[in-house]
Amino acid sequence: MHSEFELITRFFTPDPPGAEAGVTLGVGDDCTLLVPTPGQRLAVSVDTSVAGIHFPEDAPAAAVGHRALAVSLSDLAAMGARARWCLMSLTLPAADDDAWLADFARGFHALCDTTGTALVGGDVTRGTLSIGVTVMGEVPPGQAMVRRGARPGDLLAVTGALGGGAGGLALWRRGERDTGHPLLKRYLHPLPRLEAGLALRGLASAAIDISDGLLADLGHVLEASGVGAELMPDRLPMAAGLVTALGEEGARQAGLHGGDDYELLLGLPPEHLDEARARLAALALPLTVIGRVNDQPGVQGVAVTGERGWQHFPGEGVP
Amino acid sequence: MHSEFELITRFFTPDPPGAEAGVTLGVGDDCTLLVPTPGQRLAVSVDTSVAGIHFPEDAPAAAVGHRALAVSLSDLAAMGARARWCLMSLTLPAADDDAWLADFARGFHALCDTTGTALVGGDVTRGTLSIGVTVMGEVPPGQAMVRRGARPGDLLAVTGALGGGAGGLALWRRGERDTGHPLLKRYLHPLPRLEAGLALRGLASAAIDISDGLLADLGHVLEASGVGAELMPDRLPMAAGLVTALGEEGARQAGLHGGDDYELLLGLPPEHLDEARARLAALALPLTVIGRVNDQPGVQGVAVTGERGWQHFPGEGVP
Repeated sequence: MHSEFELITRFFTPDPPGAEAGVTLGVGDDCTLLVPTPGQRLAVSVDTSVAGIHFPEDAPAAAVGHRALAVSLSDLAAMGARARWCLMSLTLPAADDDAWLADFARGFHALCDTTGTALVGGDVTRGTLSIGVTVMGEVPPGQAMVRRGARPGDLLAVTGALGGGAGGLALWRRGERDTGHPLLKRYLHPLPRLEAGLALRGLASAAIDISDGLLADLGHVLEASGVGAELMPDRLPMAAGLVTALGEEGARQAGLHGGDDYELLLGLPPEHLDEARARLAALALPLTVIGRVNDQPGVQGVAVTGERGWQHFPGEGVP
Repeated sequence: MHSEFELITRFFTPDPPGAEAGVTLGVGDDCTLLVPTPGQRLAVSVDTSVAGIHFPEDAPAAAVGHRALAVSLSDLAAMGARARWCLMSLTLPAADDDAWLADFARGFHALCDTTGTALVGGDVTRGTLSIGVTVMGEVPPGQAMVRRGARPGDLLAVTGALGGGAGGLALWRRGERDTGHPLLKRYLHPLPRLEAGLALRGLASAAIDISDGLLADLGHVLEASGVGAELMPDRLPMAAGLVTALGEEGARQAGLHGGDDYELLLGLPPEHLDEARARLAALALPLTVIGRVNDQPGVQGVAVTGERGWQHFPGEGVP
């Protein structure tokens, strides 16, 4: 069995971040020392992904590593924060599996690289596979996008497409293993909308990332803002291939309730719509208006039969 | 069963930190927004405590909460960093136990209060009881105490007393349940040496917290510094009551190999000894010289039969 130290140095910090990443003392001391950018706020969040609950136990190792970081980075995206650093708490089953670990680390590091996030600390313990990732990002004072800012008259808009996470999970559970399938890619390798978050600073009145499903996360925004909304469910931008995979009703349910999409849901003053669309078009990311904020309690325009909270896995959110 | 949100708001953020704690947006959004002190380095570390590995499954809930935070704060202490913020990843067994949770939260919050640490984020998942705590602290540039700074001629010194953690665990395993027993207090409610760490800035050449046992942690300092040391094992400051509890040889082993003491081990230029002692005396904390750094490889003065790494629990480090 590897020691914790061997595991960390071999798989996770073969090439430790340095001064260029704002790290003046790296992994291997009691703490890592970081250099925050003067004048910025520090945005922090932690999310834990547990095998069998947040992802299938037989998910590809690289996808497990990617997703564990992606779900945390998605919280930075929703604030409009720039990703800087992360720490990982890895709980591993007793039996070492070097090939699995190498793939897991590769998936994690690849997303670090594409998002400019430096892995600056972590620990390894033994137990049921689980990955806790703390992320730290930066945002100028007053520019963070928060949940509580939605106002009556604002548009509701979403980036990208919905239902892909739920669709991919449904296919995985049916035995689909072609990881090149667009829906499986959506589920196994979701892309946190960090660049979109930066682009939407100063435009959106409120933002949240869609991790628990559109209606559930919309509910968080409405509650925090003390407002209601009318949704236009026929306008939801559906992930490509979703109707084929799940049927009409299944796709509709996945769009409304499916989790793990990691798109951004925005409150957007109407006068900012064109500019927001233009900035996201530069990222090749569509922005779709799906409703409007009002002062009526709750959500109108869609029949909600109880609170169908998204169960990541095993899920009941997808028929 | 409580929802994650209910758990967090009811037990962990009934009184959320505010601007006085450097928090401009608190728990309940995608991220928490913090205000770093201008010009300071940010010191970060994460430690995970797993039931049955890092603490006995029947340990008192308040002690579990206290210890989970203490082991992370101890890393800040060893750097000479001032504690500011923490985040908690809590994995709980499926069955809710409100009394247990309330005690756990009380133990955690009490140490937050005494150390000036604000709980600014966290998440709750279901599984084997485990607590991951990320801590963030601050230290002026160039003033952090690191492992690699020990030089030949430096004294080796330790704060407080050794072996108490191992002694307390041994008593607990024998069925001792008087939590007022000094050794049980040492094990169940270790105090991270944060004030000592601040006081030793500018004096110590190297520092580490003793979590894995004196010899193991000394080894980390020597390796990082590229030096050796001569230890004077008869000079080790033993925790009160340790010989009575474990016998002469058991106490000696606990002092050399026992983990969970969370004292600081220092490299100290001889000319700084008096000042260091004076500053720690103001904290009612003794400082004991236990050896000297030299340029011989390894540790002299003590017969080390192999690497007896401290197993937190169930431990083989205590006879």
